[in-house]
Formats: sequence, C-alpha cells, structure tokens
Amino acid sequence: MRYEFYYHPTVQGRGEFVRLALEEAGADYVDVARKGKAGAAAMFKIINDKRSARPPFAPPFLKAGKLVVAQTANILFYLGPQLKLSPRDEAGRLWAHQLQLSITDLVVEIHDTHHPITSWLYYEEQRPAAKRRTRDFWRYRVPKFLGYFEHILQRNGGRYLVGGRLSYVDLSLFQIIEGLRYAFPKRMKRFEKKVPGLVALHDRVAARPRIKAYMASKRRIPFSQWGIYRYFKELDA
Amino acid sequence: MRYEFYYHPTVQGRGEFVRLALEEAGADYVDVARKGKAGAAAMFKIINDKRSARPPFAPPFLKAGKLVVAQTANILFYLGPQLKLSPRDEAGRLWAHQLQLSITDLVVEIHDTHHPITSWLYYEEQRPAAKRRTRDFWRYRVPKFLGYFEHILQRNGGRYLVGGRLSYVDLSLFQIIEGLRYAFPKRMKRFEKKVPGLVALHDRVAARPRIKAYMASKRRIPFSQWGIYRYFKELDA
Repeated sequence: MRYEFYYHPTVQGRGEFVRLALEEAGADYVDVARKGKAGAAAMFKIINDKRSARPPFAPPFLKAGKLVVAQTANILFYLGPQLKLSPRDEAGRLWAHQLQLSITDLVVEIHDTHHPITSWLYYEEQRPAAKRRTRDFWRYRVPKFLGYFEHILQRNGGRYLVGGRLSYVDLSLFQIIEGLRYAFPKRMKRFEKKVPGLVALHDRVAARPRIKAYMASKRRIPFSQWGIYRYFKELDA
Repeated sequence: MRYEFYYHPTVQGRGEFVRLALEEAGADYVDVARKGKAGAAAMFKIINDKRSARPPFAPPFLKAGKLVVAQTANILFYLGPQLKLSPRDEAGRLWAHQLQLSITDLVVEIHDTHHPITSWLYYEEQRPAAKRRTRDFWRYRVPKFLGYFEHILQRNGGRYLVGGRLSYVDLSLFQIIEGLRYAFPKRMKRFEKKVPGLVALHDRVAARPRIKAYMASKRRIPFSQWGIYRYFKELDA
C-alpha cells in the first residue's frame, strides 16, 4: 500500500517521528504537502473539509486507503505492526504506545522552553520566562524523562527499548537526542554522560543504512528556528 | 475482573477521565491510592520498582490482572471495548483515541493557563504571564478545540461524538466542561453559546444514573486549587 503522509512542509516537527518510521521501514509513501503548492493545499483541504466525518484536528496525519489517522503517537501505533516496528501482541503494542505518549509529553516541554508564555509572542518578547523555564527543564524534567528511558533501555538488555528488535520508540528517541543536541549543544554534551545507553542507541540508529541514507537526503528537512527545537545561545548556558 | 486504579488521592487531575469511564460502566474497581497511607505507598512502590520491566512514568495507571497500563488516553483505549465505551472495530477505536489525544493536548493547555512559566514557581510569582497565556487560550485555543469537538458532534448527529452510543470521549468532554466552568465561570458562561451541542451533551452525561450517583458521592473528589483547573478571579475577566 502507498501511504499518503501530511505535515507542514518546512519543519521536522511532530511529523518527523512518523517520517523516520516510514523511512526505516522502506515504506512506499508520499510526503504530500512537500509536493509544491498543490500538496500543501491538499493538506489544508482535508483538515477544513466540513463534510468529512472524521477530520484531523491538525497535522500530522496519514492516509492509508480510506483510513485517515491523526495524532503522531496514534499514527505510529497504527503503523507499528504494518512496518514491523512494534510488537504484535496487545500488551506489547500498548507498552510501546505508552512510551511514545511520554515522548509526546516531552516534546511539548521541549517546545515550551523557548515559548513558555504563549505562541503568539516572539521568543524575544518572553526571554526571561524562557530562561527560567529552560533552567527547570534541565534541572528536573530532562533527568526525569531521559533517566526513565535510560532505565527502561537497560532493563530491556540495552539494545532496544521494547522487545527484541528495533521499534518506532527507538527511532523517536534518536530524534529527541538529535533535537536536544541542536537546541542545547553545551547542556546536552554535559548531560549525555548520564544516559550512555541512549547515546549508544542513537548512534546505532544513525548507522542503520536506511536512516543514514535518509539523513543525507533532501527528504530530511534541516533543523531551523521554526521548529520544536530552536537554538538560543542564552538558553544553552 | 477487578481493576486496580492508581492516581494521586487528593485531586481529580488526569485520573478523573478514567474514573468517569469506570463509574459509568459500573466496573468493579479499587481506587487504590485513596485507601489510606498504605494505598498511596503502594502506588509509589509500583512506580519506583527498579526490577519492573514496564514501570509507569507517572500516575494514572491501571492494573488489570498482570497488565499495567499507563497514560490516560492509553488506559481508556485499553478499557474502551471492555467497558463498552468505545467502538470495537479498529478504525473506530483509532478515531475515538485520536479525539482523546486532542483532549489530552487541551488538558495541558488548561493547566498552563495558571502555570505558564514553570511548575516550580507559585501562581502568584507568574501572574502577568498567566494573564497573557489565559488571554490567548480563550482567544485562540478554546474556540479551536471546542469548536472542533462541536463540529464532530454535530456531524455525527448531535448525540454522541463517536458512533451510535456513549463513549469515553463523551465522558471526557463532560469533564472538560465541568472543569472550565469551575476555573473560568464568567468566560465559560459567555462562550457556551458557541457550543450548544457540547453543553447539551454535558447535561445528558450529568443526568445518567451512574454519573449522577458518582458526582454526589465521596468518590468524586471536589475541584480545588491544586488540580488542572484552578479558579483565579483575575484570569476570569
């Protein structure tokens, strides 16, 4: 089946967690909104279609035949068994999804480091608040989230987070580490000593042939100052 | 099966979405952490158990036999068919879950109206930021989220959000409306004209015999200034 994937065409954002899974699996997919103006228009047409019984609230969403699935973690839950990137048994699928939902929570907190007060102000208009938020994020939240995933990884043998083979959860944690390195290079460098298992997992994912090819291709949108992860020198003290 | 439910014993919080489903279904469950000090200790023991292969990141979580499921929306996804509170077919279950994940996103935004900068400062230490956040929340986010759910409800015939019978999504939207009325009585009163379908849904849920009995019981923890929803006069201008 050819999947149609829809997400904002100029940022990695939440869509990237799905792109990585599609790429690792070598799935047949079209990144619709990146196919010129008509592609982006097609995305908004689906979202704004008042006759649709099940419109997505927001991108990303995936079309698989007649089915339209939205919400990043829900898309991965659906794709997991099809792409052989999650366990097939119910308990294993729920467990992988549970971890993915904690990654979803972490992503919100990463975004809010640079926009704590509101997304309707520029970063420069909320800099003191961003500094304070970032301080607590690195003091309390990063150790709690990444410490948890490090523990899960070690408890599972150190190679994969879930079961005995690669899953979309491993790919998502690869992306979390890539992003934290972009946004907070100094802080992350210091912190990585505390999560050696996750760093090694990141490196193994990066070395996988399809991921390596994807990262070197134009299909991988570069990090920028418009995504979830943004670099501000003063937040990386 | 007797379910064991675990959540902080003194707030409704995220756990309330699960409690409402268990109550509506008349399920056999124990709200473990509310059973005195030993109950709360049992909850933290499960979270902090280093030998556990699949520890929850945080409450709420549910024990069903040997299975432990965490993350509110994941718990509801699991319970849905068992409690007859979601469709049974895969597409229907994914759709209900997708809506629940948008409710999850909304809940974070509701909480952040009173604590935009950080949870490690008191509300009184971030009041100007809370005012600004609340303004944008009511100007942009409430209309977008509740407008979306109103549309879905009307598009589905006006009685239920999903399919032809009550689901956990209806119960969760009941709780969203209850909470917004507690935290923002004046703003909500003005806004409700725009979502008449959701208000009528709220009233139908409130009138259901088991929900009515639950709301009048001690099992329903009252709203307070420690939960997701908090009332501050100056945010309800």
